[in-house]
Amino acid sequence: MTGSSDSRLYVALVHYPVVDKNGETIASAVTNLDLHDIARVCRTYGVKGYYVITPLADQKVLVNRILDHWVSGAGGRYNPKRQQALERVHVKDTFVQSVDEIAAVEGRRPLTVATTARRGMGGMTCQRLKGLVENDTPVLLVFGTAWGLTDDFMARADHILEPLAGPETYNHLSVRSAAAIIVDRLLGR
Amino acid sequence: MTGSSDSRLYVALVHYPVVDKNGETIASAVTNLDLHDIARVCRTYGVKGYYVITPLADQKVLVNRILDHWVSGAGGRYNPKRQQALERVHVKDTFVQSVDEIAAVEGRRPLTVATTARRGMGGMTCQRLKGLVENDTPVLLVFGTAWGLTDDFMARADHILEPLAGPETYNHLSVRSAAAIIVDRLLGR
Repeated sequence: MTGSSDSRLYVALVHYPVVDKNGETIASAVTNLDLHDIARVCRTYGVKGYYVITPLADQKVLVNRILDHWVSGAGGRYNPKRQQALERVHVKDTFVQSVDEIAAVEGRRPLTVATTARRGMGGMTCQRLKGLVENDTPVLLVFGTAWGLTDDFMARADHILEPLAGPETYNHLSVRSAAAIIVDRLLGR
Repeated sequence: MTGSSDSRLYVALVHYPVVDKNGETIASAVTNLDLHDIARVCRTYGVKGYYVITPLADQKVLVNRILDHWVSGAGGRYNPKRQQALERVHVKDTFVQSVDEIAAVEGRRPLTVATTARRGMGGMTCQRLKGLVENDTPVLLVFGTAWGLTDDFMARADHILEPLAGPETYNHLSVRSAAAIIVDRLLGR
């Protein structure tokens, strides 16, 4: 499943704990295109694994049904490229489980780097993180769904990545777009 | 609708003429998230306009219903940020209509730059196109839906952008991801 040209960069998409529009902590629903789009980015750029984090039993059933269709079912025969992308998706109950699994594979705990659209939270630049990735440091880059990762979650991450920014203060990208852009900045030529 | 910090970069998402899995020319269906995700990227980075090209009457009705909801309807009151993004979406029957409209706004015909995932087609690098955009050249960056723009369409574009590439030959990004990455490369800091 993992090619020799892969980095030691991993991506996690967190559905809990995240905040809703009002800042309340929730478990968000899984979005089908978040699985596909981000898996395709991961496969194209050589991200080593893509973790989808949800504690909700019905959501795990949904994700596994989608993965079964594309990885071992009719979808994979129809579109083998999609199959190759979705092979890298792992579903976990908790974020800690994804960290533990990567630590077992890599022989050391990955550096956890949380992303946010909010200014004034983050310190690490994409350029600095790119240097760590190129130096073969195992890194788990974390994206929150809904209105983003909770403050508590971000406080426990090793680093917070500086938010993407355009020319104005408007910054409302989908998590799919943000993941694509940041992975390109870290692994693109 | 257009901020002073906007570039003269425009984006078009073409639903006709594009090819299907077998290389046949088709008119593809509009995908709701293509509207939202790419509009949000355009608004965040200061892309001046986002043209959605479809000749199909029912598809135009669908797009305009979505836009009405978010720009002037209940959606805009619920989420004003989404409203600001979708205000930049223009629906046109043909690609030529979008070129003509931009020419009328800018006082000159935009440079048309087609994108593709296929290798060996394109010549222009993102770096070179970034230079043109920074030099205030009006540019219309064109993305194809389904399996991409037709050869005829690409032959008529002024330039073809080199495809995005990871470490391997696998390159199957969604059009949403490709648009996010290329706009970031052209307008990101």
